[in-house]
Amino acid sequence: AGARQMINHRGPEFASMLERILSGMKPYFGTSSDIAMITTAGTGGLEAAIVNTLSPGDRVLGISIGSFGDRFAKIAQIYGAEVTTIEVEWGQAADPEVLRAELDRSPGYKAVLLTHNETSTSVMNPIEELAAVIREHAPDALILVDSVSGLGAVPFDMDGWGVDVVVTGSQKAWMAAPGLAMIAASPRAWKAMETATMPRLYLDLLAHRESHAGGQTPFTPAIAVVYQVDEGLRLMTEEGAEHVFARHEACAAATRAGLAALGFDLFADPRYASRTVTAATVPGGVDWKSFNRAVKARGVVLAGGQGKLTGKIFRLGHLGSVTVEEILGAMSALEIVSIASGRAIRPGVGVAAAQAAAMESYGLSAPTAVGVGA
Amino acid sequence: AGARQMINHRGPEFASMLERILSGMKPYFGTSSDIAMITTAGTGGLEAAIVNTLSPGDRVLGISIGSFGDRFAKIAQIYGAEVTTIEVEWGQAADPEVLRAELDRSPGYKAVLLTHNETSTSVMNPIEELAAVIREHAPDALILVDSVSGLGAVPFDMDGWGVDVVVTGSQKAWMAAPGLAMIAASPRAWKAMETATMPRLYLDLLAHRESHAGGQTPFTPAIAVVYQVDEGLRLMTEEGAEHVFARHEACAAATRAGLAALGFDLFADPRYASRTVTAATVPGGVDWKSFNRAVKARGVVLAGGQGKLTGKIFRLGHLGSVTVEEILGAMSALEIVSIASGRAIRPGVGVAAAQAAAMESYGLSAPTAVGVGA
Repeated sequence: AGARQMINHRGPEFASMLERILSGMKPYFGTSSDIAMITTAGTGGLEAAIVNTLSPGDRVLGISIGSFGDRFAKIAQIYGAEVTTIEVEWGQAADPEVLRAELDRSPGYKAVLLTHNETSTSVMNPIEELAAVIREHAPDALILVDSVSGLGAVPFDMDGWGVDVVVTGSQKAWMAAPGLAMIAASPRAWKAMETATMPRLYLDLLAHRESHAGGQTPFTPAIAVVYQVDEGLRLMTEEGAEHVFARHEACAAATRAGLAALGFDLFADPRYASRTVTAATVPGGVDWKSFNRAVKARGVVLAGGQGKLTGKIFRLGHLGSVTVEEILGAMSALEIVSIASGRAIRPGVGVAAAQAAAMESYGLSAPTAVGVGA
Repeated sequence: AGARQMINHRGPEFASMLERILSGMKPYFGTSSDIAMITTAGTGGLEAAIVNTLSPGDRVLGISIGSFGDRFAKIAQIYGAEVTTIEVEWGQAADPEVLRAELDRSPGYKAVLLTHNETSTSVMNPIEELAAVIREHAPDALILVDSVSGLGAVPFDMDGWGVDVVVTGSQKAWMAAPGLAMIAASPRAWKAMETATMPRLYLDLLAHRESHAGGQTPFTPAIAVVYQVDEGLRLMTEEGAEHVFARHEACAAATRAGLAALGFDLFADPRYASRTVTAATVPGGVDWKSFNRAVKARGVVLAGGQGKLTGKIFRLGHLGSVTVEEILGAMSALEIVSIASGRAIRPGVGVAAAQAAAMESYGLSAPTAVGVGA
């Protein structure tokens, strides 16, 4: 504090940390282009993606599969873009054919907004397929992707897929606290920023890139969170990206199988179920608030539904540092509370199903009908 | 992380912490109106002050006494306000007479932008006097004040002085890490937000106020910093606001006296010298970079000048948890490095002057010509 600062965000130590983070994240984005880091929640990152690349009056196509997709489109509209929205039924992914039809019907979109992982519905969009359709049918459109809660947990190939801007947030896959958004832009997106006229100063990504090149940030960064992201990346490197991805896949498989075995209906289309969050329908006859209270008393934090899904679904996050063991613990809590509240469940079935699914995900399925439990 | 979160920003624990912070800060702002908390650097808070209360085309008077004042005016201009700027010589405070003349000459300003503590020059503006001039000569103008690095360290009476918006930052007086900006608005500023048309979503203060009323934030907050601000406020309450203010005053007096005794020319007009940061001129013949390196090796972090003051001044911060003892330590380092670099200084003179000034500031001056050292 004051005279004797522990951390100087204008010093060489910060500069090397920043450089380590920005270059260390590139393989997760799948890009060789520049990344900027801003001190905001993920939503600030989405706003940065819009206001830096677009101008009032630009025609923008928003494809919303949930409340974060709605928010992304709303930002563009607030800043004066002419926004058309394709609304997808919640729980479903965006349909490449519908996207193709809209792009053919109405040429001239300056940008298309896509959500990679829609936290509100636990659906992951097939970004590679969707981007391919845009590249083919609207090659001049910028592809802006909200991957706040996806990137780092699942493979992403920004350069290979032709995506222009990708946004992620420190508190999601990166094992850190909230407070930072990281935004990668393709060369043509960086170029677009030179002429885009939506107003911005705090979120000005060109100013961030210029400052980052000198080892700094243009405004005081959330230093404590920067340290955590640095440590999170170190842990991810130690574990290896492939293992990180496999762990998230195993946790997701375990969560889905466990919830299903406990009699919960999964909310997302199984073909596009998220690998970082799982939503299930609150069963008829179960009071969400008291159910949630009982689960929380056992140390497991569930998220309720948002907006029109309030009280109808619950969500279990499984990203960042989460392990299969933690998922089993969560399943145990859900099982105990379910049984205690009178639901007819055979003890152990949720945990066993989760464990089996995790093992199968890791390629460790046991031979059938063999072993002590068979 | 994930399944078992340590901190749930949608839970009752966070809600009480947020309420404790927002009400605990009110006496420091000197307001009974509502405060909003956003996850950004201080500059994001300044942008929020502008974009929530103003509309493109509004006439705005910016009074700049340094680089942060320039930035405040630049934000208004970027968002389409018609900005007139009064430029004050760096090192000086704003002159109420000049302000009065401009308001009389050119009626109709929708807002006046003031910097309370200008970090780049270590000057504190006389906000009470300036606000009184505005209230009298342009009663309809909103008074927007950047007190990022002042509030909490010195008395402020937003309601009493008729100030409309005040912005502060977590890493300054509040003893916390960077990442949060707190913004108080007067009833008429909150009212202005209902019709102001500059675009905003992430920085939308009405959305923050509404969410805060329910014990939440509209977007994921920098939770770790929220905890720190809560703890900082607790320490400040324990110490007592009057003691906090007196400590900052004593630290500032000690810093100024010590630097002067070491032969450094203070940069700010002494009548308006900041109580949270002190700037001194780099003496002729002293190379700033090697001087700074040597001081840093002794654990003291100085800030250089910004923009046109680069290499010409250095700055020593003394806010947050800083104590007189830390200031004495910093003076010792500056004295040793000064002497080692060949400047003619009698050993002990800087530390002694700082100590005497701190004691005088605390009302503890020793009787003259008495005592062992006399």
